[in-house]
Amino acid sequence: MHILVTNDDGVTAPGLLALAQAMRALPEVKVSILAPDRNWSGSGHVKTLERPLRVRDVTLADGSTAFASDGAPSDCVALALLGFFEEKIDLVVSGINPMHNLGHDVTYSGTVTAAMEAVIWDTPGIAFSLGSLDNHLGALDYTAAAQIARRVVSTALEHRLPSGMLLNINIPYLTAEEIKGIRITRQGLRVYRDRLDKRMDPRGKPYYWIGGDSPTGTPEEGTDVGAIAAGYVSITPIQLDLTMYSAIPTLGDWDWKS
Amino acid sequence: MHILVTNDDGVTAPGLLALAQAMRALPEVKVSILAPDRNWSGSGHVKTLERPLRVRDVTLADGSTAFASDGAPSDCVALALLGFFEEKIDLVVSGINPMHNLGHDVTYSGTVTAAMEAVIWDTPGIAFSLGSLDNHLGALDYTAAAQIARRVVSTALEHRLPSGMLLNINIPYLTAEEIKGIRITRQGLRVYRDRLDKRMDPRGKPYYWIGGDSPTGTPEEGTDVGAIAAGYVSITPIQLDLTMYSAIPTLGDWDWKS
Repeated sequence: MHILVTNDDGVTAPGLLALAQAMRALPEVKVSILAPDRNWSGSGHVKTLERPLRVRDVTLADGSTAFASDGAPSDCVALALLGFFEEKIDLVVSGINPMHNLGHDVTYSGTVTAAMEAVIWDTPGIAFSLGSLDNHLGALDYTAAAQIARRVVSTALEHRLPSGMLLNINIPYLTAEEIKGIRITRQGLRVYRDRLDKRMDPRGKPYYWIGGDSPTGTPEEGTDVGAIAAGYVSITPIQLDLTMYSAIPTLGDWDWKS
Repeated sequence: MHILVTNDDGVTAPGLLALAQAMRALPEVKVSILAPDRNWSGSGHVKTLERPLRVRDVTLADGSTAFASDGAPSDCVALALLGFFEEKIDLVVSGINPMHNLGHDVTYSGTVTAAMEAVIWDTPGIAFSLGSLDNHLGALDYTAAAQIARRVVSTALEHRLPSGMLLNINIPYLTAEEIKGIRITRQGLRVYRDRLDKRMDPRGKPYYWIGGDSPTGTPEEGTDVGAIAAGYVSITPIQLDLTMYSAIPTLGDWDWKS
């Protein structure tokens, strides 16, 4: 079993090392790391076609070897699955992101799109994120999250994930004892509180920050946001078919000719 | 009615001008343009938080004024919807992209993610793409596509698009007479043919192109790919809830504790 570990925060992020170490603790597993050489948070699903990508080897904090590319997280996955490593990749895990990816975050998230890219190439993908709902955390301890990642991957490997699906996993920032369990959830409602912040530069020209407070969420029962708010690990099955099937009959009734 | 026109190819792209002119031909409509100052194709859903954004005004080829930002397509939409323009935006249209966005392309597409960003801010969004299935086209004539865009937007405005949904519209590269009609479709299967192309630079160090042939698609009846292959305009309703609901019971039966 050959597992690729990647992330969107860059190859030196402590969350990546914690995830790689958790994967190495699984029996009969070979772990390879190929991750971006810089932070790509909020980068979405990228396919870099207009320039070539570089890959260099890096020594991580525990002395192990990883590869760093100047592409996005999804580029790293494409590189790996298209043959950068000689051995076939059987599973892609991404993270551990030091902030939740809940609700609509999944469309922006480099962590999640790395797992999406895996699924496009018919390889299972799992994204891991750790955080609290208000996102105001300092340096994180990944111990409990890494334990959970190992358990989740162990279960997923045992059952084989269905094709065309990735898992988006959010872990509350609690100790292993405080975490209440695991919930299988649907994507909930993230509440963004962005505001446009117009400022003037020293030359009197405007520039614009997308500012405002961190997103919150509606902690509805059955959702990812709800599970995190209640102290559970959230596992959301995510598909790449974005069709709103329920709207097809309605749209079919409209007169598009006029 | 205030319509924002944006794209992912950059503010000077001819497809954007064609779309803006088509929107201006609608009755009682005000059109504003805010688009990236460069090409962001394949950029996915981006939220730029780590740096401020600049906006400058640009004169387009027909003498009209547009705004160009150094952010991604979704940043342009966020800027517009968060208050860059004094008047509220009622609809965001994105395109016309000079290449189809079919199947899994929607997850990579800057054109589509601009419409996604609109929907996240509870504003209707429509993405337009023009092309042929093999994508080997030169400079495009946007006349027929612009006519179709005007008709589609007219119908969508009349019926009001449901909340939480965007339209992903693909138009075959045919004359208005040759286009057979409009089909409401589901997302089909894109067939990517990427290959890793390893090369050596003049200093003997490797670099990697994501190369290979352009994607094709499986022209299944009822899908976006199928509609385009048969000479129809494809209208796919797209949602931002990516949950694979059918997998929730299965995952709930697995033992996640071991």
